[in-house]
Amino acid sequence: MNAPTAPLHLLPEVQQRDVPAALIDALKARFGEQCSTALVVREQHGRDESSFQVPPPAAVVFAQSTTDVADAVRLASQFEVPVIPFGVGSSLEGHLLAVQGGISLDVSRMNQVLSVNAEDLTVTVQPGITRKQLNEEIKSTGLFFPIDPGADATIGGMTATRASGTNAVRYGTMRENVLALEVVTASGEVIRTGTRAKKSSAGYDLTRLMVGSEGTLGVITEITVRLYPLPEAVSAAICSFPSIEAAVRTTIQTIQLGVPIARVELIDHNTVRMVNQYSKLSLREEPMLLMEFHGSPTSVKEQAETVQEIASEFGGNAFEWASTPEERTRLWTARHNAYFAAVQSRPGCKAISTDTCVPISRLADCLLDSVTETDASGIPYFLVGHVGDGNFHFGYLINPDDADERAKAEELNHKLVTRALQLGGTCTGEHGVGLHKMGFLLDETGAGAVDMMRTIKRALDPKNILNPGKIFAL
Amino acid sequence: MNAPTAPLHLLPEVQQRDVPAALIDALKARFGEQCSTALVVREQHGRDESSFQVPPPAAVVFAQSTTDVADAVRLASQFEVPVIPFGVGSSLEGHLLAVQGGISLDVSRMNQVLSVNAEDLTVTVQPGITRKQLNEEIKSTGLFFPIDPGADATIGGMTATRASGTNAVRYGTMRENVLALEVVTASGEVIRTGTRAKKSSAGYDLTRLMVGSEGTLGVITEITVRLYPLPEAVSAAICSFPSIEAAVRTTIQTIQLGVPIARVELIDHNTVRMVNQYSKLSLREEPMLLMEFHGSPTSVKEQAETVQEIASEFGGNAFEWASTPEERTRLWTARHNAYFAAVQSRPGCKAISTDTCVPISRLADCLLDSVTETDASGIPYFLVGHVGDGNFHFGYLINPDDADERAKAEELNHKLVTRALQLGGTCTGEHGVGLHKMGFLLDETGAGAVDMMRTIKRALDPKNILNPGKIFAL
Repeated sequence: MNAPTAPLHLLPEVQQRDVPAALIDALKARFGEQCSTALVVREQHGRDESSFQVPPPAAVVFAQSTTDVADAVRLASQFEVPVIPFGVGSSLEGHLLAVQGGISLDVSRMNQVLSVNAEDLTVTVQPGITRKQLNEEIKSTGLFFPIDPGADATIGGMTATRASGTNAVRYGTMRENVLALEVVTASGEVIRTGTRAKKSSAGYDLTRLMVGSEGTLGVITEITVRLYPLPEAVSAAICSFPSIEAAVRTTIQTIQLGVPIARVELIDHNTVRMVNQYSKLSLREEPMLLMEFHGSPTSVKEQAETVQEIASEFGGNAFEWASTPEERTRLWTARHNAYFAAVQSRPGCKAISTDTCVPISRLADCLLDSVTETDASGIPYFLVGHVGDGNFHFGYLINPDDADERAKAEELNHKLVTRALQLGGTCTGEHGVGLHKMGFLLDETGAGAVDMMRTIKRALDPKNILNPGKIFAL
Repeated sequence: MNAPTAPLHLLPEVQQRDVPAALIDALKARFGEQCSTALVVREQHGRDESSFQVPPPAAVVFAQSTTDVADAVRLASQFEVPVIPFGVGSSLEGHLLAVQGGISLDVSRMNQVLSVNAEDLTVTVQPGITRKQLNEEIKSTGLFFPIDPGADATIGGMTATRASGTNAVRYGTMRENVLALEVVTASGEVIRTGTRAKKSSAGYDLTRLMVGSEGTLGVITEITVRLYPLPEAVSAAICSFPSIEAAVRTTIQTIQLGVPIARVELIDHNTVRMVNQYSKLSLREEPMLLMEFHGSPTSVKEQAETVQEIASEFGGNAFEWASTPEERTRLWTARHNAYFAAVQSRPGCKAISTDTCVPISRLADCLLDSVTETDASGIPYFLVGHVGDGNFHFGYLINPDDADERAKAEELNHKLVTRALQLGGTCTGEHGVGLHKMGFLLDETGAGAVDMMRTIKRALDPKNILNPGKIFAL
């Protein structure tokens, strides 16, 4: 058992479980070069974008097929050792950390498109393909996969965390867009959930149970997702506002009117400044909405006119349009780089991300009080939000070695989540529970619901080997 | 233990479990007049729209609150007696039948709207409210609940079976539209799943696990669903075609082009004839699509023009428009009455309904061969379909006492399901598995997935008291 390399801030007390040498030998015998125990490889698989520091896994297996995954899980099961699926490591919540020790199961080499069914608007992929790679590969079909969490995450990781992002306000989340899965169970059995039919009432919704289960109920080895025709017309616009409140009220009214806006993202003035610096842009350093409209040319025009009218009522400036694909890409890259821009604005910092999501009518209440609190704390932060869904992220930029700053940030986070729950919301709109939100999950759903989750986990993974120690203590 | 009143056609062999007199006494003591053992009441709760005949439950409890439900379940648990939730009895698959004996838990008196959150487009209701009653009660908000399975089912029953229906092509199914639930577990504990937030990554998706679980994992006592703004413009049209194939090809192309059509229903010439007779209409007795377009006036116009153009290519007649709400209601009532019209066309008959759903590109392959087969069989039938989703229903109108007819119908059903599964579809798009599709579920998902369902069931309901004997044998 290794000693922790740094204090396990806010992590539940858990034992690192033994990884017997016999398991490593068996993995090396089965996987040869595909199994690594090199420290640099293990360390790369022992961290993610969260601020936790945990000892790395004892070995990394690079799976290249469902059979590889099944064999690795069967060996882990035989030795009762944790196995943690790994894609590109973009989790913000510590999902990939070996808190109880064990092995990392890297599926990034399983990155093929298995079949495109353009006529049915579906595609089946392996879990290690990233969303950008997928969209690149299906470009010629005139279809696209809309879910866009910012990072170029894998489809497997996005499925496991029930990810969403900027397009969800129109196209839904992974919950709505995953049709079927192939999954390796805790005993190494390969099962299929769902079919390519658009809807089904065939028994328990195992697909939806796996979506968002964070690697704790099975290892996802194939995913069938819905695709959408590339919209005939796309227009993107930015609009600056005199206050965050004005931007938020514009959003609320847009949603309540049922405008089928494809994206509506809030970026606060702090974050605009960081983005300007990082991406060499000259956006007006005021709270801003970044919007996108999809549809037929007349529908896009109608939508944009309606939203422009609402924005003016709240003091928004005239829309600045990005009408060519290049301009649009530049704007969205700026938005997607907000996280990196922010982290770079304070060298050596780590971001603690909040992820609350509230009913749209409560968005202003939830957000504005937290802005006041955070400003008062003196902790640098960024603020971006998929506000059309009532979801937003503060990123508290802390010095990871400063216990006081961390405590302050956690206190802000705690106040924000408490407020969101009181307003009928959730502690996590899209990042997942991982290590960081276990306590909040309990506050949100109550002990009865968490017990039900735990009962399901115990039944499906009796040896507790699948990404143990995440979502709830076990 | 009662003897079966009629042969249990195609039902798995199960034992009726004992219902001790002490339980009945305890229920009477706790519920007084709300508990009935009168034969007429028990018989009314011992059947549904399926063609199975099973002995009625030993008692019926009329719950008026979550506490009533929890107390009834606790008593059932104490005596290890099955408890079967009951709404209005519109199940087509035998969900409500006491195949292992036990008590019926009628929630139809729990039919209140608990809170309307018009600004967030959500409403929280009790399970016994029907969809028509719900829409009546929220009329003044300018919002509506779109899911429409035809029958005026309860929202609880629709949740339990993952229902959908005519509007699903645009608005999704219960899977997409249920946000949160209150559920009484097998031990009588009350838990909450989900919040009013539009999206969440907070742990296992217990909401989706309960949606479609057919009363086998918990008794649903509160449901929060999404609402939608009443569309600014609504137009309904019918279009007759020279063949079923022409109607189906029109549908496929409409969906593949991404037209956001709100409803597109196929009715074959047989069924048009039955509907004409039953509803005193004079629709052209040819295969017909019944369509509805929702949106802004320009968007509705655009959609309708596109579809009209496609229809003409396949030989469809000019659209006949129903532009007033009254005309629309008349048309849709005719569609919704298709089932009753069909059943009445052969006095004394029972309908065996199929419910396959396939990827849209396979719809013609799946449907046309089955039409040929069914015509050849000589069994009277109706055919309607939510074809925009790839879902359609044959209703074989059999004499329930004629074993030969029943066997023929089951054989047709079997061929149809086999074909649908081969084409990447599901045996049930919206009715659920119930008693009738257990074998098909196994064919569809494989033993591994059914075993996983069974493991979850055993873990959450160790005494097997919640609607036992449905979905899979246990």
